[in-house]
Amino acid sequence: MSDDKPTIPPEGSGKGIKHFDPELFQRKELSGTLPGDRLVRISRHRSFKGGGPGILVPRQKAVEPKSNIGRFFRRAKRVLIGEPIPTDQEIHERLTKVKALAVLSSDALSSVAYGTEAIMRTLILAGVAALSLTLPISLGITLLLVIVATSYQQTIRAYPSGGGSYIVARENLGTIAGLTAGAALLIDYVLTVAVSIAAGVDALKSAFPGLRPFDLEISIVAVLLIALFNLRGIRESGTVFSAPTYIFVFSVIGIIIAGIVRLLTGGLAYTPGPAGPLAGTHPLTLFLLLSAFAKGCTAMTGTEAISNGVPAFKPPESKNARITLAWMAFLLGIMFMGISFLVTQIHLVPDPSEHETVLSQLTHLIAGNSWFYYLVQFSTMLILFLAANTSYADFPRLLSILARDRFAPRWFGLRGDRLAFSVGIAALTALSLLLLVIFGSSVDRLLPLYAIGVFTSFTLSQAGMVIHWMKSGEPNRLRSAVVNGIGAVVTAVVTIVIGYTKFAEGAWMVVILVPVFIIVFLLINRHYMVVARQLRDKPQVKPSESPTVAIVPVFSLNLVARQALSFARGICKRVIAIHVATDPAAVDRLRADWEEVEDDIQLIIINSPYRILLPPFIAYIEAIKEMEPQDNLLVILPEFVPKHWWEHILHNQTARRLKEALLYIPGVVVTSFPYHLEE
Amino acid sequence: MSDDKPTIPPEGSGKGIKHFDPELFQRKELSGTLPGDRLVRISRHRSFKGGGPGILVPRQKAVEPKSNIGRFFRRAKRVLIGEPIPTDQEIHERLTKVKALAVLSSDALSSVAYGTEAIMRTLILAGVAALSLTLPISLGITLLLVIVATSYQQTIRAYPSGGGSYIVARENLGTIAGLTAGAALLIDYVLTVAVSIAAGVDALKSAFPGLRPFDLEISIVAVLLIALFNLRGIRESGTVFSAPTYIFVFSVIGIIIAGIVRLLTGGLAYTPGPAGPLAGTHPLTLFLLLSAFAKGCTAMTGTEAISNGVPAFKPPESKNARITLAWMAFLLGIMFMGISFLVTQIHLVPDPSEHETVLSQLTHLIAGNSWFYYLVQFSTMLILFLAANTSYADFPRLLSILARDRFAPRWFGLRGDRLAFSVGIAALTALSLLLLVIFGSSVDRLLPLYAIGVFTSFTLSQAGMVIHWMKSGEPNRLRSAVVNGIGAVVTAVVTIVIGYTKFAEGAWMVVILVPVFIIVFLLINRHYMVVARQLRDKPQVKPSESPTVAIVPVFSLNLVARQALSFARGICKRVIAIHVATDPAAVDRLRADWEEVEDDIQLIIINSPYRILLPPFIAYIEAIKEMEPQDNLLVILPEFVPKHWWEHILHNQTARRLKEALLYIPGVVVTSFPYHLEE
Repeated sequence: MSDDKPTIPPEGSGKGIKHFDPELFQRKELSGTLPGDRLVRISRHRSFKGGGPGILVPRQKAVEPKSNIGRFFRRAKRVLIGEPIPTDQEIHERLTKVKALAVLSSDALSSVAYGTEAIMRTLILAGVAALSLTLPISLGITLLLVIVATSYQQTIRAYPSGGGSYIVARENLGTIAGLTAGAALLIDYVLTVAVSIAAGVDALKSAFPGLRPFDLEISIVAVLLIALFNLRGIRESGTVFSAPTYIFVFSVIGIIIAGIVRLLTGGLAYTPGPAGPLAGTHPLTLFLLLSAFAKGCTAMTGTEAISNGVPAFKPPESKNARITLAWMAFLLGIMFMGISFLVTQIHLVPDPSEHETVLSQLTHLIAGNSWFYYLVQFSTMLILFLAANTSYADFPRLLSILARDRFAPRWFGLRGDRLAFSVGIAALTALSLLLLVIFGSSVDRLLPLYAIGVFTSFTLSQAGMVIHWMKSGEPNRLRSAVVNGIGAVVTAVVTIVIGYTKFAEGAWMVVILVPVFIIVFLLINRHYMVVARQLRDKPQVKPSESPTVAIVPVFSLNLVARQALSFARGICKRVIAIHVATDPAAVDRLRADWEEVEDDIQLIIINSPYRILLPPFIAYIEAIKEMEPQDNLLVILPEFVPKHWWEHILHNQTARRLKEALLYIPGVVVTSFPYHLEE
Repeated sequence: MSDDKPTIPPEGSGKGIKHFDPELFQRKELSGTLPGDRLVRISRHRSFKGGGPGILVPRQKAVEPKSNIGRFFRRAKRVLIGEPIPTDQEIHERLTKVKALAVLSSDALSSVAYGTEAIMRTLILAGVAALSLTLPISLGITLLLVIVATSYQQTIRAYPSGGGSYIVARENLGTIAGLTAGAALLIDYVLTVAVSIAAGVDALKSAFPGLRPFDLEISIVAVLLIALFNLRGIRESGTVFSAPTYIFVFSVIGIIIAGIVRLLTGGLAYTPGPAGPLAGTHPLTLFLLLSAFAKGCTAMTGTEAISNGVPAFKPPESKNARITLAWMAFLLGIMFMGISFLVTQIHLVPDPSEHETVLSQLTHLIAGNSWFYYLVQFSTMLILFLAANTSYADFPRLLSILARDRFAPRWFGLRGDRLAFSVGIAALTALSLLLLVIFGSSVDRLLPLYAIGVFTSFTLSQAGMVIHWMKSGEPNRLRSAVVNGIGAVVTAVVTIVIGYTKFAEGAWMVVILVPVFIIVFLLINRHYMVVARQLRDKPQVKPSESPTVAIVPVFSLNLVARQALSFARGICKRVIAIHVATDPAAVDRLRADWEEVEDDIQLIIINSPYRILLPPFIAYIEAIKEMEPQDNLLVILPEFVPKHWWEHILHNQTARRLKEALLYIPGVVVTSFPYHLEE
């Protein structure tokens, strides 16, 4: 996306190893069991350069794939995601307030593209007249936004190093609360990608109806492109991402102002489309009103991003973040209210065919088919795609924090070639593509699942903040606790409203998934803790454990078997050869050969009348282990290594399967003795 | 299918090991490096019983799976395919002529169910009048049958141990000719299954039109059932399979006789169906006539089965086989001619909707809707399924012969639990199901691919016989050579006719596939030969090769790493520990720990600024191997073994991937040092 490629230190500059202290190993060179010259000579090998005593630095060429196919994949990877970045080149780009608003708020700001529409599409079920309620409901949501933003101002103050809901809830309310917030957020991040991409494609389709049949395909390509940008690492994000956000904000505000001016001068009138006004199919119940409110609350997803990203701000971080959050809430509020105000004033009816978004209808009405209309639609699409991109920052980061705390598999914490959390990016891509395919890239079908997770995490985070203030020694702690307490209560009520009204439509999936996630997190944590304890607590190791008996399975006395046997003889005093007999002729041949060459090694024949190879051998090993538990057994497996991968299918995979099976018998060490075919 | 289950020898009877000669190992007990009492004690372990000195016989319980899931699969397997049969229980059931005719001829005899129809459906393209040519074409095919049968009489005489086309062609014409015959036959065996099953389901659909929509499903179930019977081993085949074959033969002959009687008494008249006589769409060209002839030749597939199966006959095998072949040809000839005669006499027109077979139409006309009609249809279906079963005997056997001669992967020669060639059966099932699905279980669409393979192998086999006689010293060799020569020329002409007329319709696939198969056979053979030569030709092995340097990759100095290091110390005098450094903090921790505990082992840090683990380690091993080629390297990989399979995904698969990669570096032996988690 930009030209400032990471600079890889030139070979031999030694820059990459500056974090090692060579002094520590100075002594070793003299006392090691290995002659010092060997080490020195290795560092003179063309694959390495010395990095001080005991330290080797591989040259780039030495670690590159050697096979043609390996080189091809490497080159393809380089083209797609760029040259790898060394660990010590990690740069934490600090964001100005202007850039931060663009980068961290795209999720929240973009919600105005579908927020008003979501309310209207619910209200219209009670007839066109009910649409007039759009404005009061929007007002309620804006009020909610002010409360939540004020609450988060306090979180930023208390957690200047980044206060995600998982961290705040876990620290103040305990592990289960933290994991609940974490699980809810992970689910909502996936939904954010799916909803934002689907809505972005809707904006595109409104402007170019010819693209309608390809919505799913466009959505998939968009997700893949965003994933690719993120795998490349998004250090250039601030600059590049600012443009669409500000274009969107200014053009939407422009439309609103122009709309209000024309409304006041009487020049704005809406004529319902050919479908005519729809008659209501539902009575205007409280449930319907709450549903419309719940749908509109989706506009508030993404509010948390700024409090997550405090350390990315330029100093004073905390203050800048709070100012940015206020601006974000202000812009979101006026855009949301402005659109809702205009559509209610002109009695706009959402396109029943769902071919055109409400924002597109409104823009058409105000700006006609001008270039400005296309600018609004295009920047809407871009900011929605950027909203998906916000999840691409948050989802892998949250998973890496969970991995660090041992609640998620370790590899979610590993950084890829470009220092991005590649596994998390891949997981988010797979899950959001799955959602898009299942729900056919339809915003309306995805929305019921959305927002409940965000509001659950809002509630837990605010409740955690209340505890935080109560325990703190700050002078204003009571006032702060009250502010967060109001936030917690309000968001809790909204969470219940969302859960209640959307339950049957899909929120039940989230309600089921969250506890499932929590159980999985806890199981994973338990496993890692058990491992760590076992690795720590065990009694001291014996100074030297050498195997006492070597066991070599032989099929026939060919060259591989002979080399394996002589290798065994070199390591252990006692060697046993085992032949699992499935073919009498092979036994006779083997015994005849044996007499000639290997008369110092005991050959044991295990008869296998049913022609199975593994179980009799395993049974023998288990029997020996049981009868002579003090013996260290070393099983030496002669193994063929063909030159080409396809040749593997021409050999029975016995050695491989045996290796797998033996791994599970405690006290048995397995050695693969490879034999390399030369042609 | 029958009650005569194989009798498994009772435990401890020692019957299963009678083919071993314990005497050979008497001496060993005194001279072995292992104390004799250990061996004796092992044979007293509950898992084993002694089978003589140096021989162990595992008890059934010891080789059974121990995990619940393993036991479940084992039990399911037992229910499906029965208890395993010991190798020495293999019984070659000898067949009487009556049984042999049923078992070995079902493929050939069943062809009358679709042979005449195939001719008619081609001729009708030139209009209903052209159908009168059905009889002369059938006569030509019957003549061809007589020639081929006579030729094969001679093959049986010359190859009393079974003269399949592959064997005859390979022995007399060379490897390529043999492989051509083998490839052509393999393809046709797959087609036999697909065509016979599809035709059998057609017979069923003719009788029960309600089953029409489910033809593909019924076909798939039929193939799977036949595969299952064959995996069980089909020793009971003779008795069980005789019934449908003879019911089919007698009922078809009965229909023919009844038809001729009613024709002579004037009581048989056919009124064309509501569709009315079709007008011709093609002119009656020579090409069309040849096409009809080629389609009819499919009736001759399966003629080879008897000459393949000579050793299965009761003595005198050769004579009995020849008599059976003559009977087979006679029955096939009169049934085929009888049906063709009747349909031409009454001017029967094949059902244009293809809902009813010609044989069903004829039987309806003669027997009405009586029980006899259903008997004919049902026995037609059964004999067609039996025809598929013939391929299930031939295909795996031919592949096992090819595997024995090292032209096919070795595992095609392995016998399963019930002594059947399981892999071949599985391959045939997969391929024929694929064909049925691709061609929608339609006989008419499958037929163009069929028969060209059979006639190719006929030609090669007969040509081979000509050479065989010329080289032999028999008195009548010239006459025999002339008989086979006529067979070779005639079948060669027919092969060309079939290839020419069916080429565009699908035979081209076979024409492409046969050379592809031959190339694959030759590549496989080359590989096995190279392996065998390398295992034989190598210079003598050194008496004892012990590793000189042990290399242990360590991530941190936890218990597993310490045990692995002490194991390494026990085996090798020189031990090097390698740490691939991706995280500076981990390096500092490791070094601090190292100072305390492992100060006799050299620790080498390889810096990996791009966070990759494997390539730097591999590069180090390769560099050492290059600089010190005389060293035997032993890489010891500390490896975690979780207690549950799902725990694997929680650990980086580094050890596993490293093991794979190291396997490909010559001169490096890899030892997995497992650490078993206890919880």
